Amino acid sequence: MREFILFSRGVTKEFKLNDLPNAGRMDLIARCISTAIFLSYSLRKDVKFHVVLNGPPSPPLTVTFFTNELKNVSPDERNIASHINIAIKNFGIGKKNSEPGIYIDKKSFEELVKEKIEEYGSNNIFYLHMDGEDIRNIEMKKDSVFILGDNKGIPKKEENFLLRNEIRKVSVGRIEYLTSQVIAIVNYEMDRRGL
Amino acid sequence: MREFILFSRGVTKEFKLNDLPNAGRMDLIARCISTAIFLSYSLRKDVKFHVVLNGPPSPPLTVTFFTNELKNVSPDERNIASHINIAIKNFGIGKKNSEPGIYIDKKSFEELVKEKIEEYGSNNIFYLHMDGEDIRNIEMKKDSVFILGDNKGIPKKEENFLLRNEIRKVSVGRIEYLTSQVIAIVNYEMDRRGL
Repeated sequence: MREFILFSRGVTKEFKLNDLPNAGRMDLIARCISTAIFLSYSLRKDVKFHVVLNGPPSPPLTVTFFTNELKNVSPDERNIASHINIAIKNFGIGKKNSEPGIYIDKKSFEELVKEKIEEYGSNNIFYLHMDGEDIRNIEMKKDSVFILGDNKGIPKKEENFLLRNEIRKVSVGRIEYLTSQVIAIVNYEMDRRGL
Repeated sequence: MREFILFSRGVTKEFKLNDLPNAGRMDLIARCISTAIFLSYSLRKDVKFHVVLNGPPSPPLTVTFFTNELKNVSPDERNIASHINIAIKNFGIGKKNSEPGIYIDKKSFEELVKEKIEEYGSNNIFYLHMDGEDIRNIEMKKDSVFILGDNKGIPKKEENFLLRNEIRKVSVGRIEYLTSQVIAIVNYEMDRRGL
């Protein structure tokens, strides 16, 4: 499984689809998910994308898209965001899985990362950061987890948590790319290796 | 200058920002532009993105985004699309440059490519296609033009025109990526070479 974890400031309430940037950069979140899970006319197999929403009013919430089960999603930002909206809405009435392949739960970034450490081991989890080791020099397995921050990055506290748990910083270059661009590059580097 | 040319089915009239996919995949177009021109909190320098709109009612129209002049654009699809909408609207009353860095004209794909051949020479123009030569084996200069098709690709007639003009097919792998993902990868490969 290839997994992505995005630390975001996305809001934890329903939001307007006509103004995604003001919903804690829900546009960025949707773009990241789309980039991670889609190929031309198909979804990737065996990809899980987790976004941790840390915005108001009741953070954290973690929404997960699992490509092997997803139905009726399109790559445009508005469509992806609409599914997040549905998940948030239904979580309000206690539903954690109201659409195929989309899950939501009251789970923090650190709780989620801890789960993944138990599942994959720290050495298969990579924190994407401009100052990390060059991704082209890193050995990676098919089963890998990639952690990314939104436009504001991962806060110091959470970053220290990652480093304390021996999660390595990996870089795709000394350029500050959009998070969605980093995801496209990570998928590409994995694909190049046949993983 | 790094230039991109996207052959699209985008509509050539004003469209609804709430339904970009039904405007000739304006979502795809906006995503491609955003991916090509943005970095985190900044625009790339020296990038021109041309999208040829071949959709109804009055194709073709070519819209160009030039990063050195652009103002007030955001990376979300809706924002980029709104600027295309403004360009189309103002072209209706004869304006070819109603916002800084955004140009529109009645120009076809073949006319545009011919201009670029004169400007750069065929050997610095690359047609991104799954079946092309591996981009990692291709010598490229800082001044390069990349041609891409939308989700339906470049029609046979236009493709033959490219091949007749000795424009090489270049590939980023044997995977059918979204056009926006290909653009992220092309930028990354250029960046890696310091171009």
